[in-house]
Amino acid sequence: MDVDEPVCLPRLSRIAVCGGTHGNELPGVYLVRDVLKLQRRASEGEEDDGEEHTSMLTVLSNPRAVQQCRRYTDTDLNRCFTLATLNGPTSDSPPYEVLRAQELNTMLGPKGGPGAVDLVCDLHSTTANMGLCFIAYSDCDWICLHIFKHLQRRMPDTPMRFIHLGISGKESYSLDSVGKHGFAMEIGPQPHGGVRSDIYAVMSAGVRHMLDWVGLFNSGAVFEGGWVDVFTLVKNIDYPRDSKTHNITAAIHSHLQDRDFCLLRPHDPLFQTFTGETLRYEGGEPLYALFINECSYYEKGIALSLARKRRLAIPAIRAQTEEEEQADERALTSEEEE
Amino acid sequence: MDVDEPVCLPRLSRIAVCGGTHGNELPGVYLVRDVLKLQRRASEGEEDDGEEHTSMLTVLSNPRAVQQCRRYTDTDLNRCFTLATLNGPTSDSPPYEVLRAQELNTMLGPKGGPGAVDLVCDLHSTTANMGLCFIAYSDCDWICLHIFKHLQRRMPDTPMRFIHLGISGKESYSLDSVGKHGFAMEIGPQPHGGVRSDIYAVMSAGVRHMLDWVGLFNSGAVFEGGWVDVFTLVKNIDYPRDSKTHNITAAIHSHLQDRDFCLLRPHDPLFQTFTGETLRYEGGEPLYALFINECSYYEKGIALSLARKRRLAIPAIRAQTEEEEQADERALTSEEEE
Repeated sequence: MDVDEPVCLPRLSRIAVCGGTHGNELPGVYLVRDVLKLQRRASEGEEDDGEEHTSMLTVLSNPRAVQQCRRYTDTDLNRCFTLATLNGPTSDSPPYEVLRAQELNTMLGPKGGPGAVDLVCDLHSTTANMGLCFIAYSDCDWICLHIFKHLQRRMPDTPMRFIHLGISGKESYSLDSVGKHGFAMEIGPQPHGGVRSDIYAVMSAGVRHMLDWVGLFNSGAVFEGGWVDVFTLVKNIDYPRDSKTHNITAAIHSHLQDRDFCLLRPHDPLFQTFTGETLRYEGGEPLYALFINECSYYEKGIALSLARKRRLAIPAIRAQTEEEEQADERALTSEEEE
Repeated sequence: MDVDEPVCLPRLSRIAVCGGTHGNELPGVYLVRDVLKLQRRASEGEEDDGEEHTSMLTVLSNPRAVQQCRRYTDTDLNRCFTLATLNGPTSDSPPYEVLRAQELNTMLGPKGGPGAVDLVCDLHSTTANMGLCFIAYSDCDWICLHIFKHLQRRMPDTPMRFIHLGISGKESYSLDSVGKHGFAMEIGPQPHGGVRSDIYAVMSAGVRHMLDWVGLFNSGAVFEGGWVDVFTLVKNIDYPRDSKTHNITAAIHSHLQDRDFCLLRPHDPLFQTFTGETLRYEGGEPLYALFINECSYYEKGIALSLARKRRLAIPAIRAQTEEEEQADERALTSEEEE
């Protein structure tokens, strides 16, 4: 392949924008439920202008948790999209979120199948000072990486990072893994159970620019290659805890709080115990700290995550033409017939 | 009364420091459960030095909500301390928090009775940018106002305000109303369900200085009079809502977010709708905005509260001597006998 020749990828004809996967992350709830739904209705009512439209689904992922303004009711929905949970037999009284994951898999998937939607963008918010992040399983999904690059260019005032989960697609567990392409758009700092207008504005702009990019891509635009910095998760660190009660005995150190994506070096202050002592980072390798003091992760035993940073080259891309798509389909059919 | 003569008030021999009245407000939970409890044990183990000790109770107010990391399980505990709820007959299956309020009233009260603890300090945190606030029913409780003045002097770098609820003691509903004196110490911004070390440090210092003040007061120190600025609540404003679904349709305007205690003037930006429109303050009177975008108040229909500011003169005070106390008791007994 010539390095200047764009990679040709299938068009994205069906995309899904999801919010409320965690019921107390309100910016995504309001964006999906009230605003995008209205816009979708308005655009459906427009005269057909002859152009091929991308179909956009808007999904309120966990309506029961949204109604209660809690992260989840029985279990974390965004850990229920493993193939085992989606396809496994259910118990007599399965958790609500397991049933809901199966419903969503029917609606947007099936995960891994040819009928799955082309792109899932799942909206999240975090109490950590994360700016706008893309979170994805793959570091070579050119669609997600190009959308990220597009948002970086269009929103130069918003701190923006690409987080690579560093586990295989087979182990993937979150809603965005149901689509052929997918990522979580995570924005903070935003306390759970509320909505800040600054965070809402960033999320709204992020979704708008993503939709613009999909429109440009589908209409045949060529996107130049380039470089993207990617943070790959290495490990999580838990809070210090009392060995008997399991209660935490320290908070994130004030030097580290709100400094997501800073480089944490060996011996840097990490925690501050409730009696005033400083505990330091004991790892041997400098790593980037993120999801610092995310309130929903106390129960998961995560005080912060640590990541390595790499710079990735991504190729130029464009959508396949109708002829290329048909040729692809013919090739696939003849393969199947053989 | 000579203006220079200090007002003599009974000593504060029994005080209570409470946390976890809202189970997801963690700074107070950790301070009360782990740290103060340990300190109390340590001081109980000390040799008796002959000085009269103040007895301090530490109370985890809503252990069931703390365990679930939620504000409450059935109903807001901090609205259950009305005389009607504390003394009324209970239904067959009363909400957990009503039973717990009655337990706490037995432990710390009875509210309004001579056996109640002398002072209740109830620790709270808020997602709003409130700094450290005292919240009280009375604007002429010299004990609370002097403790506030003491903290202001000792913690000059912490923004600190005194909020007067502006309703009568008869209507009082919160845990701190069970003591002879009482106030909520409210600190923010702090997302619910987590603990920031900066907020924890302020709360910890606030409690320490309060305990110091009580010790000084009980040992006979005279505290000079002076002035305190008091914010008296006037009204609450709800979010704009959809008339059918009751969902909110706007967030606090970005110009107002995080600006608690600013003066909101007629026509100032107040809300930003999710479709981008600015809604302005329509009141005729400039008022101070507080509890701006507190996440727990969405369900109460409160987007922010508005207050008037006044400067109050407070008199010098000192504790009654033992002789004065005995004379008081004799006078009371003879009154009762008459």
